[in-house]
Amino acid sequence: MIYAPPPMLHLHARTDLAWGTAALAHLPEILHDHAHCEKKAASTAIGLVFRYPDHPGLALPLAALAREELEHFERVVVLLRARGGEFGRLPPSPYAAALLSACRTHEPARAIDTLLCCALIEARSCDRMQILHRALVVARSQHHPAVDDDLVALYDDLLACEARHHGAYVELARTLGDRAAVDARLDELAVHEARVIAEAPVLARMHANLDGT
Amino acid sequence: MIYAPPPMLHLHARTDLAWGTAALAHLPEILHDHAHCEKKAASTAIGLVFRYPDHPGLALPLAALAREELEHFERVVVLLRARGGEFGRLPPSPYAAALLSACRTHEPARAIDTLLCCALIEARSCDRMQILHRALVVARSQHHPAVDDDLVALYDDLLACEARHHGAYVELARTLGDRAAVDARLDELAVHEARVIAEAPVLARMHANLDGT
Repeated sequence: MIYAPPPMLHLHARTDLAWGTAALAHLPEILHDHAHCEKKAASTAIGLVFRYPDHPGLALPLAALAREELEHFERVVVLLRARGGEFGRLPPSPYAAALLSACRTHEPARAIDTLLCCALIEARSCDRMQILHRALVVARSQHHPAVDDDLVALYDDLLACEARHHGAYVELARTLGDRAAVDARLDELAVHEARVIAEAPVLARMHANLDGT
Repeated sequence: MIYAPPPMLHLHARTDLAWGTAALAHLPEILHDHAHCEKKAASTAIGLVFRYPDHPGLALPLAALAREELEHFERVVVLLRARGGEFGRLPPSPYAAALLSACRTHEPARAIDTLLCCALIEARSCDRMQILHRALVVARSQHHPAVDDDLVALYDDLLACEARHHGAYVELARTLGDRAAVDARLDELAVHEARVIAEAPVLARMHANLDGT
């Protein structure tokens, strides 16, 4: 069954509901990868403040966004530990690097593309968290031993944040260029993103695929 | 007049009160540099979570610390703008790079030294903020046109945070090695730090020197 993402997420591909069900079998690793994703998101946002001091309009929104990603990181690590896991080394999905490889290299195109790729990563995270949340709700109703209210609440809370972050990144990109051109580029990058996520390897990661999905 | 820093800051040198008075003549640049320092502190803390996933005890304290640094960054940028300034490019003091050059390159010594250098940067920031706060209080009592309650409150609030961050970094370093050895290394690095700050150029930065100080 195919789930249709909200149009405001600008995604061209949809994650199959089967991914959520398959992810239930890999919850500790998915949760671990999720912690890494939040940490990476915080780091990327701060990195953009470093790279673009001459775009002062980015500084405060990106700092606030990074703070929220760190809060999520801490929340996921606490949940991971409560379930017997531990934060440590974990090879990432190649998804983000493949997505960002499409960024143009001259400014301000590079800044716009980077912000739009960040927007699409947030959109894909939101999409995946919606799917996972739905699978967790079903699993909880069936008394799945690994699923509790805290885990369900985590994805319920966070998917709304990811949607908001998506919108924030799109708005920031629009401050750096002509709105119609930025929106057209968002659409181009969304086509690329759909290909990148479809071609991601079979791996228990938020931004990869699982057998049978 | 020489100000004696609290012994818990582990500093070997003291900042002269004259630095605070001299800094009053460069408040916009000092405030701008301060914003950069907070951003850099956040980035360094997150960078350590990336570099040391195999020390899971670092993850949550450093993430919380980075969040607080980002809050400070935002607060300083808001104050800077309220005073007609803007966040932008600003060459840093060579202080931090010179301090960190003393870190040993093998693990876990590198991790311990990096955490201790971070502790000393927080200590020096606390020392400088105490001096600056004192100069601001005097200037406000004399109706200095550039000094208002918000600025005085900023340094009053933040110097306490810097002292707390200093302690947090020292405690984290102690989790990675023998306590007596870590404390002896802190003392060695504090001697180095005192030399680095004394030799910093004349520049309107939190971690540099000003003419006549």
